[in-house]
Amino acid sequence: MKQNYKLTVAYDGTRYYGWEHQPNTEMTIQGKLETVLSRMSGLPEGESVTVIGAGRTDAGVHARAMTANVLLDTQMTPEEIGRYMNRYLPEDICVRDVKVCADRFHSRFKAIGKLYVYTCYVGEDKPVFDRKYVTVLEERPDTARMREAAEYLVGTHDFKAFCGNPHMKKSTVRHLRSIEITEDGPYLRIAYQGNGFLQNMVRILTGTLIEAGCGRIDPARIPEILESRDRSQAGPTMPPQGLTLVRVDY
Amino acid sequence: MKQNYKLTVAYDGTRYYGWEHQPNTEMTIQGKLETVLSRMSGLPEGESVTVIGAGRTDAGVHARAMTANVLLDTQMTPEEIGRYMNRYLPEDICVRDVKVCADRFHSRFKAIGKLYVYTCYVGEDKPVFDRKYVTVLEERPDTARMREAAEYLVGTHDFKAFCGNPHMKKSTVRHLRSIEITEDGPYLRIAYQGNGFLQNMVRILTGTLIEAGCGRIDPARIPEILESRDRSQAGPTMPPQGLTLVRVDY
Repeated sequence: MKQNYKLTVAYDGTRYYGWEHQPNTEMTIQGKLETVLSRMSGLPEGESVTVIGAGRTDAGVHARAMTANVLLDTQMTPEEIGRYMNRYLPEDICVRDVKVCADRFHSRFKAIGKLYVYTCYVGEDKPVFDRKYVTVLEERPDTARMREAAEYLVGTHDFKAFCGNPHMKKSTVRHLRSIEITEDGPYLRIAYQGNGFLQNMVRILTGTLIEAGCGRIDPARIPEILESRDRSQAGPTMPPQGLTLVRVDY
Repeated sequence: MKQNYKLTVAYDGTRYYGWEHQPNTEMTIQGKLETVLSRMSGLPEGESVTVIGAGRTDAGVHARAMTANVLLDTQMTPEEIGRYMNRYLPEDICVRDVKVCADRFHSRFKAIGKLYVYTCYVGEDKPVFDRKYVTVLEERPDTARMREAAEYLVGTHDFKAFCGNPHMKKSTVRHLRSIEITEDGPYLRIAYQGNGFLQNMVRILTGTLIEAGCGRIDPARIPEILESRDRSQAGPTMPPQGLTLVRVDY
Protein backbone atom coordinates (compact mmCIF):
# COMPACT_ATOMS: atom_id res chain seq x y z
CA MET A 1 0.00 0.00 0.00
CA LYS A 2 1.38 3.34 -0.98
CA GLN A 3 1.55 6.02 1.66
CA ASN A 4 2.08 9.74 1.11
CA TYR A 5 5.09 11.29 2.90
CA LYS A 6 6.01 14.92 3.39
CA LEU A 7 9.72 15.66 3.15
CA THR A 8 11.56 18.77 4.35
CA VAL A 9 14.83 19.21 2.52
CA ALA A 10 17.82 21.59 2.82
CA TYR A 11 20.32 21.95 0.04
CA ASP A 12 23.26 23.94 -1.16
CA GLY A 13 22.24 24.52 -4.77
CA THR A 14 25.73 25.45 -6.01
CA ARG A 15 26.41 22.21 -7.87
CA TYR A 16 22.89 21.67 -9.19
CA TYR A 17 20.84 22.62 -12.22
CA GLY A 18 17.97 23.52 -9.92
CA TRP A 19 15.21 21.52 -8.26
CA GLU A 20 13.50 20.12 -11.34
CA HIS A 21 14.56 17.31 -13.66
CA GLN A 22 16.58 18.50 -16.63
CA PRO A 23 17.40 16.54 -19.75
CA ASN A 24 20.93 15.12 -19.93
CA THR A 25 21.94 15.66 -16.32
CA GLU A 26 21.65 13.82 -13.04
CA MET A 27 22.46 17.01 -11.15
CA THR A 28 19.07 18.19 -9.96
CA ILE A 29 17.73 18.05 -6.42
CA GLN A 30 14.58 16.22 -7.53
CA GLY A 31 16.70 13.74 -9.45
CA LYS A 32 18.99 13.02 -6.48
CA LEU A 33 16.03 12.48 -4.14
CA GLU A 34 14.21 10.23 -6.60
CA THR A 35 17.30 8.13 -7.30
CA VAL A 36 17.80 7.42 -3.59
CA LEU A 37 14.09 6.71 -3.01
CA SER A 38 13.82 4.43 -6.06
CA ARG A 39 16.77 2.45 -4.75
CA MET A 40 15.28 2.35 -1.25
CA SER A 41 11.96 1.10 -2.63
CA GLY A 42 13.66 -1.64 -4.66
CA LEU A 43 11.47 -0.83 -7.65
CA PRO A 44 11.55 -3.04 -10.72
CA GLU A 45 13.28 -1.73 -13.86
CA GLY A 46 11.24 0.96 -15.58
CA GLU A 47 9.33 2.06 -12.49
CA SER A 48 10.35 5.13 -10.59
CA VAL A 49 9.42 7.32 -7.68
CA THR A 50 8.17 10.87 -8.28
CA VAL A 51 8.97 13.54 -5.73
CA ILE A 52 6.67 16.59 -5.96
CA GLY A 53 8.33 19.79 -4.76
CA ALA A 54 6.58 22.87 -3.40
CA GLY A 55 8.39 24.90 -6.01
CA ARG A 56 11.12 24.79 -8.59
CA THR A 57 14.24 26.58 -7.42
CA ASP A 58 16.57 27.72 -10.22
CA ALA A 59 20.09 26.42 -10.82
CA GLY A 60 22.36 27.61 -8.01
CA VAL A 61 19.55 28.63 -5.64
CA HIS A 62 19.62 27.17 -2.10
CA ALA A 63 16.93 25.95 0.28
CA ARG A 64 16.79 25.68 4.05
CA ALA A 65 13.41 23.99 4.11
CA MET A 66 11.97 23.07 0.75
CA THR A 67 9.00 20.75 1.15
CA ALA A 68 8.01 17.91 -1.09
CA ASN A 69 5.72 14.90 -1.06
CA VAL A 70 6.15 11.41 -2.38
CA LEU A 71 4.10 8.20 -2.51
CA LEU A 72 6.09 5.23 -1.20
CA ASP A 73 5.38 1.59 -0.58
CA THR A 74 7.70 0.72 2.30
CA GLN A 75 7.78 -0.95 5.70
CA MET A 76 10.26 1.61 7.00
CA THR A 77 9.30 4.21 9.60
CA PRO A 78 9.59 7.91 8.63
CA GLU A 79 12.76 8.16 10.79
CA GLU A 80 14.27 5.19 8.98
CA ILE A 81 13.42 6.73 5.60
CA GLY A 82 15.16 9.96 6.64
CA ARG A 83 18.25 8.15 7.87
CA TYR A 84 18.44 6.03 4.73
CA MET A 85 18.12 9.08 2.48
CA ASN A 86 20.76 11.07 4.35
CA ARG A 87 23.17 8.16 4.19
CA TYR A 88 22.95 7.96 0.40
CA LEU A 89 22.37 11.60 -0.53
CA PRO A 90 25.41 13.80 -1.26
CA GLU A 91 26.64 16.00 1.57
CA ASP A 92 25.05 19.11 0.07
CA ILE A 93 21.50 17.74 0.34
CA CYS A 94 19.93 16.95 3.71
CA VAL A 95 16.50 15.50 4.45
CA ARG A 96 15.58 17.36 7.64
CA ASP A 97 12.24 15.73 8.27
CA VAL A 98 10.01 12.93 6.99
CA LYS A 99 6.36 12.71 8.07
CA VAL A 100 3.41 10.57 7.09
CA CYS A 101 0.81 12.88 5.54
CA ALA A 102 -2.72 12.65 4.16
CA ASP A 103 -3.14 11.17 0.68
CA ARG A 104 -4.59 14.48 -0.48
CA PHE A 105 -1.53 16.47 0.65
CA HIS A 106 0.19 18.01 -2.38
CA SER A 107 3.28 20.04 -1.54
CA ARG A 108 2.72 22.58 -4.31
CA PHE A 109 -1.08 22.95 -4.46
CA LYS A 110 -1.49 23.04 -0.68
CA ALA A 111 1.25 25.62 -0.07
CA ILE A 112 -0.24 28.96 1.03
CA GLY A 113 3.02 30.89 1.19
CA LYS A 114 6.76 30.94 0.88
CA LEU A 115 9.58 32.87 2.44
CA TYR A 116 12.62 33.64 0.30
CA VAL A 117 15.69 35.57 1.46
CA TYR A 118 18.13 37.22 -0.90
CA THR A 119 21.52 37.99 0.69
CA CYS A 120 23.87 40.65 -0.66
CA TYR A 121 27.34 41.39 0.65
CA VAL A 122 28.86 44.88 0.62
CA GLY A 123 31.94 44.47 2.83
CA GLU A 124 35.53 45.62 2.45
CA ASP A 125 36.87 42.05 2.35
CA LYS A 126 35.85 39.41 -0.14
CA PRO A 127 33.36 36.98 1.48
CA VAL A 128 35.79 34.06 1.49
CA PHE A 129 33.74 31.68 3.64
CA ASP A 130 30.21 32.32 2.42
CA ARG A 131 30.98 33.34 -1.12
CA LYS A 132 28.60 30.68 -2.46
CA TYR A 133 25.63 32.05 -0.50
CA VAL A 134 25.85 35.78 -1.13
CA THR A 135 25.98 38.19 -4.06
CA VAL A 136 28.71 40.80 -3.81
CA LEU A 137 27.60 44.37 -4.51
CA GLU A 138 30.10 46.99 -5.59
CA GLU A 139 28.23 49.83 -3.93
CA ARG A 140 26.01 50.03 -0.85
CA PRO A 141 22.42 50.77 -1.86
CA ASP A 142 20.38 53.30 0.12
CA THR A 143 17.96 51.14 2.09
CA ALA A 144 15.50 54.02 2.58
CA ARG A 145 15.08 54.19 -1.20
CA MET A 146 14.83 50.40 -1.37
CA ARG A 147 12.06 50.40 1.27
CA GLU A 148 10.23 53.14 -0.60
CA ALA A 149 10.32 51.02 -3.76
CA ALA A 150 9.36 47.88 -1.81
CA GLU A 151 6.18 49.51 -0.49
CA TYR A 152 4.84 49.79 -4.04
CA LEU A 153 5.56 46.11 -4.66
CA VAL A 154 3.84 44.71 -1.57
CA GLY A 155 0.24 43.69 -2.20
CA THR A 156 -1.63 41.95 -4.98
CA HIS A 157 -0.30 42.88 -8.39
CA ASP A 158 0.22 41.51 -11.84
CA PHE A 159 3.96 40.78 -11.69
CA LYS A 160 4.38 40.08 -15.40
CA ALA A 161 7.19 42.69 -15.56
CA PHE A 162 8.97 40.66 -12.88
CA CYS A 163 8.61 37.28 -14.55
CA GLY A 164 11.60 35.62 -16.21
CA ASN A 165 9.44 33.49 -18.50
CA PRO A 166 8.25 35.59 -21.47
CA HIS A 167 5.91 32.79 -22.60
CA MET A 168 4.04 32.53 -19.30
CA LYS A 169 0.48 31.67 -20.24
CA LYS A 170 -1.09 31.39 -16.80
CA SER A 171 -1.94 34.28 -14.48
CA THR A 172 0.99 36.40 -13.39
CA VAL A 173 -0.98 37.92 -10.53
CA ARG A 174 0.57 37.20 -7.11
CA HIS A 175 0.15 38.47 -3.59
CA LEU A 176 3.36 39.72 -2.00
CA ARG A 177 2.68 39.83 1.75
CA SER A 178 5.84 41.61 2.83
CA ILE A 179 9.35 42.68 1.88
CA GLU A 180 11.75 43.15 4.78
CA ILE A 181 15.14 44.75 4.27
CA THR A 182 17.75 44.34 7.00
CA GLU A 183 21.38 45.40 7.26
CA ASP A 184 23.71 43.32 9.38
CA GLY A 185 27.31 44.47 9.04
CA PRO A 186 28.38 43.73 5.47
CA TYR A 187 25.19 41.74 4.82
CA LEU A 188 22.09 43.20 3.25
CA ARG A 189 19.18 40.78 3.39
CA ILE A 190 15.86 41.10 1.61
CA ALA A 191 13.13 38.75 2.82
CA TYR A 192 10.08 38.15 0.62
CA GLN A 193 6.88 36.55 1.86
CA GLY A 194 4.18 35.81 -0.64
CA ASN A 195 1.56 33.32 -1.72
CA GLY A 196 3.61 32.26 -4.71
CA PHE A 197 6.39 33.47 -6.93
CA LEU A 198 6.86 33.53 -10.71
CA GLN A 199 10.00 32.29 -12.44
CA ASN A 200 13.01 34.43 -11.40
CA MET A 201 10.59 36.80 -9.66
CA VAL A 202 12.58 37.15 -6.41
CA ARG A 203 15.80 37.74 -8.34
CA ILE A 204 14.17 40.40 -10.55
CA LEU A 205 12.47 42.09 -7.57
CA THR A 206 15.89 42.18 -5.87
CA GLY A 207 17.58 43.59 -8.96
CA THR A 208 14.91 46.27 -9.14
CA LEU A 209 15.18 47.20 -5.44
CA ILE A 210 18.96 47.45 -5.74
CA GLU A 211 18.66 49.66 -8.82
CA ALA A 212 16.31 51.84 -6.80
CA GLY A 213 18.72 51.84 -3.84
CA CYS A 214 21.63 52.84 -6.08
CA GLY A 215 19.68 55.69 -7.67
CA ARG A 216 19.24 54.13 -11.08
CA ILE A 217 15.48 53.59 -10.74
CA ASP A 218 13.18 56.15 -9.15
CA PRO A 219 11.13 54.32 -6.46
CA ALA A 220 8.07 56.30 -7.58
CA ARG A 221 8.32 54.60 -10.98
CA ILE A 222 7.51 51.16 -9.54
CA PRO A 223 3.72 51.41 -10.12
CA GLU A 224 4.42 52.30 -13.75
CA ILE A 225 6.81 49.32 -14.10
CA LEU A 226 4.13 47.00 -12.67
CA GLU A 227 1.51 48.39 -15.01
CA SER A 228 3.77 48.06 -18.05
CA ARG A 229 3.82 44.24 -17.63
CA ASP A 230 7.07 44.62 -19.57
CA ARG A 231 10.10 42.69 -18.30
CA SER A 232 12.50 45.22 -19.80
CA GLN A 233 11.14 47.96 -17.51
CA ALA A 234 12.18 46.16 -14.30
CA GLY A 235 15.73 45.73 -12.96
CA PRO A 236 18.18 42.94 -13.79
CA THR A 237 17.85 39.32 -12.69
CA MET A 238 20.26 38.98 -9.76
CA PRO A 239 22.57 35.95 -9.68
CA PRO A 240 21.17 32.78 -8.13
CA GLN A 241 23.70 32.17 -5.36
CA GLY A 242 22.37 34.92 -3.09
CA LEU A 243 18.89 33.35 -3.02
CA THR A 244 17.59 30.89 -0.43
CA LEU A 245 14.12 29.41 -0.02
CA VAL A 246 13.75 29.56 3.75
CA ARG A 247 10.27 28.15 4.38
CA VAL A 248 7.07 26.92 2.78
CA ASP A 249 3.86 27.52 4.70
CA TYR A 250 0.70 25.34 4.65
CA MET B 1 64.32 50.21 -2.81
CA LYS B 2 62.65 47.24 -1.23
CA GLN B 3 60.12 47.85 1.50
CA ASN B 4 58.77 45.29 3.96
CA TYR B 5 54.97 44.86 4.00
CA LYS B 6 52.77 43.04 6.47
CA LEU B 7 49.83 41.20 4.93
CA THR B 8 46.71 39.90 6.68
CA VAL B 9 45.09 37.13 4.69
CA ALA B 10 41.85 35.12 4.98
CA TYR B 11 41.38 31.89 3.08
CA ASP B 12 39.14 28.91 2.68
CA GLY B 13 41.73 26.12 2.69
CA THR B 14 39.45 23.50 1.11
CA ARG B 15 41.05 23.50 -2.34
CA TYR B 16 44.66 23.96 -1.19
CA TYR B 17 47.58 21.78 -0.16
CA GLY B 18 48.18 24.06 2.80
CA TRP B 19 50.02 27.33 3.24
CA GLU B 20 53.49 26.27 2.22
CA HIS B 21 54.91 25.55 -1.24
CA GLN B 22 54.64 21.92 -2.26
CA PRO B 23 56.39 20.25 -5.12
CA ASN B 24 54.32 19.65 -8.25
CA THR B 25 51.36 21.85 -7.37
CA GLU B 26 50.37 25.46 -7.72
CA MET B 27 47.65 24.99 -5.15
CA THR B 28 49.16 26.46 -2.01
CA ILE B 29 48.26 29.77 -0.36
CA GLN B 30 51.89 30.93 -0.36
CA GLY B 31 52.17 30.00 -4.03
CA LYS B 32 49.03 31.92 -5.00
CA LEU B 33 50.16 35.03 -3.12
CA GLU B 34 53.67 34.90 -4.58
CA THR B 35 52.42 34.42 -8.13
CA VAL B 36 50.23 37.52 -7.91
CA LEU B 37 52.96 39.59 -6.24
CA SER B 38 55.63 38.50 -8.74
CA ARG B 39 53.32 39.53 -11.56
CA MET B 40 52.55 42.83 -9.84
CA SER B 41 56.26 43.53 -9.37
CA GLY B 42 57.01 42.80 -13.02
CA LEU B 43 60.05 40.76 -12.02
CA PRO B 44 62.42 39.45 -14.70
CA GLU B 45 62.38 35.74 -15.50
CA GLY B 46 64.04 33.70 -12.74
CA GLU B 47 63.41 36.18 -9.95
CA SER B 48 60.54 35.73 -7.56
CA VAL B 49 58.90 37.19 -4.49
CA THR B 50 58.98 35.31 -1.20
CA VAL B 51 56.04 35.62 1.18
CA ILE B 52 56.89 34.62 4.76
CA GLY B 53 53.88 33.33 6.69
CA ALA B 54 53.41 33.39 10.46
CA GLY B 55 52.80 29.67 10.32
CA ARG B 56 52.17 26.79 7.98
CA THR B 57 48.58 25.70 7.97
CA ASP B 58 47.96 22.13 6.79
CA ALA B 59 46.08 21.15 3.65
CA GLY B 60 42.39 21.93 4.11
CA VAL B 61 42.85 24.23 7.14
CA HIS B 62 41.33 27.72 6.96
CA ALA B 63 42.45 31.14 8.17
CA ARG B 64 40.55 34.28 9.09
CA ALA B 65 43.66 36.38 9.66
CA MET B 66 46.93 34.70 8.79
CA THR B 67 49.75 37.22 8.75
CA ALA B 68 52.73 37.29 6.44
CA ASN B 69 55.46 39.67 5.38
CA VAL B 70 57.05 40.31 2.02
CA LEU B 71 59.75 42.58 0.61
CA LEU B 72 58.51 44.48 -2.44
CA ASP B 73 59.95 47.11 -4.72
CA THR B 74 56.88 49.01 -5.86
CA GLN B 75 55.48 52.53 -6.28
CA MET B 76 52.02 51.36 -5.28
CA THR B 77 50.42 52.36 -1.99
CA PRO B 78 49.50 49.59 0.49
CA GLU B 79 45.83 50.08 -0.47
CA GLU B 80 46.68 49.69 -4.15
CA ILE B 81 48.67 46.53 -3.43
CA GLY B 82 45.68 45.08 -1.56
CA ARG B 83 43.26 45.94 -4.35
CA TYR B 84 45.59 44.53 -7.01
CA MET B 85 46.04 41.29 -5.08
CA ASN B 86 42.32 40.83 -4.46
CA ARG B 87 41.57 41.39 -8.12
CA TYR B 88 43.91 38.60 -9.22
CA LEU B 89 43.64 36.17 -6.31
CA PRO B 90 41.00 33.42 -6.50
CA GLU B 91 37.74 34.05 -4.66
CA ASP B 92 38.73 31.79 -1.76
CA ILE B 93 41.73 33.93 -0.78
CA CYS B 94 41.31 37.53 0.42
CA VAL B 95 44.00 40.02 1.41
CA ARG B 96 42.29 41.84 4.26
CA ASP B 97 45.04 44.33 5.03
CA VAL B 98 48.40 45.54 3.71
CA LYS B 99 50.64 47.72 5.87
CA VAL B 100 54.16 49.09 5.55
CA CYS B 101 56.22 47.55 8.38
CA ALA B 102 59.74 47.80 9.76
CA ASP B 103 62.47 45.97 7.87
CA ARG B 104 63.12 43.81 10.93
CA PHE B 105 59.48 42.64 11.10
CA HIS B 106 59.34 38.88 10.50
CA SER B 107 55.84 37.44 10.59
CA ARG B 108 56.95 34.13 12.11
CA PHE B 109 59.78 35.09 14.48
CA LYS B 110 57.98 38.14 15.85
CA ALA B 111 54.69 36.36 16.51
CA ILE B 112 54.06 35.96 20.23
CA GLY B 113 50.85 34.00 20.02
CA LYS B 114 48.16 32.45 17.88
CA LEU B 115 44.48 31.71 18.25
CA TYR B 116 43.09 28.59 16.58
CA VAL B 117 39.48 27.46 16.71
CA TYR B 118 38.38 23.93 15.98
CA THR B 119 34.66 23.62 15.15
CA CYS B 120 32.74 20.38 15.56
CA TYR B 121 29.12 19.82 14.59
CA VAL B 122 26.80 17.48 16.47
CA GLY B 123 23.37 18.37 15.07
CA GLU B 124 20.48 16.25 13.86
CA ASP B 125 20.72 17.58 10.29
CA LYS B 126 23.76 17.37 8.08
CA PRO B 127 25.56 20.75 8.02
CA VAL B 128 24.70 21.46 4.40
CA PHE B 129 25.88 25.09 4.28
CA ASP B 130 29.03 24.98 6.40
CA ARG B 131 30.07 21.41 5.76
CA LYS B 132 33.52 22.57 4.63
CA TYR B 133 34.22 24.40 7.89
CA VAL B 134 33.14 21.88 10.51
CA THR B 135 33.85 18.28 11.50
CA VAL B 136 30.75 16.18 12.11
CA LEU B 137 30.78 14.14 15.32
CA GLU B 138 28.59 11.07 15.67
CA GLU B 139 28.13 11.52 19.40
CA ARG B 140 28.04 14.58 21.65
CA PRO B 141 31.06 14.62 23.95
CA ASP B 142 30.66 15.52 27.62
CA THR B 143 32.14 19.02 27.82
CA ALA B 144 32.76 18.74 31.59
CA ARG B 145 35.12 15.85 30.89
CA MET B 146 36.70 17.78 28.00
CA ARG B 147 37.33 20.78 30.28
CA GLU B 148 38.84 18.51 32.92
CA ALA B 149 41.25 17.12 30.33
CA ALA B 150 41.95 20.62 28.95
CA GLU B 151 43.07 21.88 32.35
CA TYR B 152 45.96 19.42 32.31
CA LEU B 153 47.01 20.60 28.86
CA VAL B 154 47.08 24.35 29.58
CA GLY B 155 50.51 25.62 30.62
CA THR B 156 54.06 24.98 29.50
CA HIS B 157 54.63 21.37 28.51
CA ASP B 158 56.61 19.19 26.19
CA PHE B 159 53.92 18.44 23.59
CA LYS B 160 55.92 15.74 21.76
CA ALA B 161 53.00 13.31 22.22
CA PHE B 162 50.82 15.86 20.37
CA CYS B 163 53.18 16.44 17.46
CA GLY B 164 52.40 14.98 14.04
CA ASN B 165 56.03 15.04 12.91
CA PRO B 166 57.87 12.04 14.37
CA HIS B 167 61.21 13.39 13.17
CA MET B 168 60.88 16.75 14.94
CA LYS B 169 64.43 17.66 15.97
CA LYS B 170 63.80 21.05 17.61
CA SER B 171 62.17 21.66 20.98
CA THR B 172 58.63 20.39 21.33
CA VAL B 173 58.01 22.52 24.42
CA ARG B 174 55.19 25.02 23.96
CA HIS B 175 53.11 27.26 26.18
CA LEU B 176 49.36 26.76 25.83
CA ARG B 177 47.75 29.85 27.35
CA SER B 178 44.14 28.70 27.29
CA ILE B 179 41.66 26.23 25.92
CA GLU B 180 38.06 27.41 25.79
CA ILE B 181 35.24 25.04 25.00
CA THR B 182 31.88 26.50 24.01
CA GLU B 183 28.62 24.92 22.90
CA ASP B 184 26.36 26.87 20.57
CA GLY B 185 23.44 24.78 19.37
CA PRO B 186 24.86 22.02 17.19
CA TYR B 187 28.32 23.63 17.23
CA LEU B 188 31.05 22.68 19.66
CA ARG B 189 34.00 25.06 19.42
CA ILE B 190 37.40 24.63 21.00
CA ALA B 191 39.60 27.74 21.01
CA TYR B 192 43.34 27.36 21.63
CA GLN B 193 45.63 30.25 22.49
CA GLY B 194 49.33 29.60 22.71
CA ASN B 195 52.74 30.94 21.88
CA GLY B 196 53.22 28.45 19.08
CA PHE B 197 51.90 25.13 17.86
CA LEU B 198 53.63 21.99 16.57
CA GLN B 199 52.63 20.26 13.36
CA ASN B 200 49.06 18.92 13.69
CA MET B 201 49.11 19.88 17.37
CA VAL B 202 45.68 21.52 17.47
CA ARG B 203 44.12 18.63 15.59
CA ILE B 204 45.68 16.06 17.95
CA LEU B 205 44.73 18.08 21.04
CA THR B 206 41.17 18.21 19.71
CA GLY B 207 41.13 14.47 19.00
CA THR B 208 42.34 13.85 22.54
CA LEU B 209 39.77 16.16 24.14
CA ILE B 210 36.98 14.52 22.17
CA GLU B 211 38.17 11.05 23.19
CA ALA B 212 38.10 12.30 26.78
CA GLY B 213 34.63 13.77 26.28
CA CYS B 214 33.32 10.53 24.81
CA GLY B 215 34.72 8.44 27.68
CA ARG B 216 37.47 6.74 25.73
CA ILE B 217 40.33 8.56 27.49
CA ASP B 218 40.32 9.25 31.25
CA PRO B 219 41.01 13.00 31.69
CA ALA B 220 43.28 12.16 34.63
CA ARG B 221 45.55 10.28 32.21
CA ILE B 222 46.54 13.48 30.35
CA PRO B 223 49.66 14.19 32.48
CA GLU B 224 50.83 10.64 31.76
CA ILE B 225 50.23 11.12 28.03
CA LEU B 226 52.23 14.37 28.07
CA GLU B 227 55.08 12.69 29.97
CA SER B 228 55.16 9.72 27.61
CA ARG B 229 56.17 12.00 24.72
CA ASP B 230 54.64 9.20 22.64
CA ARG B 231 52.29 10.18 19.81
CA SER B 232 50.45 6.86 20.05
CA GLN B 233 49.29 7.68 23.58
CA ALA B 234 47.32 10.77 22.50
CA GLY B 235 44.03 10.84 20.59
CA PRO B 236 43.56 10.84 16.82
CA THR B 237 44.43 13.71 14.47
CA MET B 238 41.10 15.35 13.70
CA PRO B 239 40.32 16.21 10.05
CA PRO B 240 41.60 19.57 8.78
CA GLN B 241 38.34 21.19 7.68
CA GLY B 242 37.17 21.98 11.22
CA LEU B 243 40.30 24.02 11.94
CA THR B 244 40.67 27.78 11.47
CA LEU B 245 43.57 30.06 12.35
CA VAL B 246 41.71 33.04 13.73
CA ARG B 247 44.47 35.45 14.72
CA VAL B 248 48.23 35.94 15.09
CA ASP B 249 49.42 38.22 17.90
CA TYR B 250 52.57 40.38 17.92
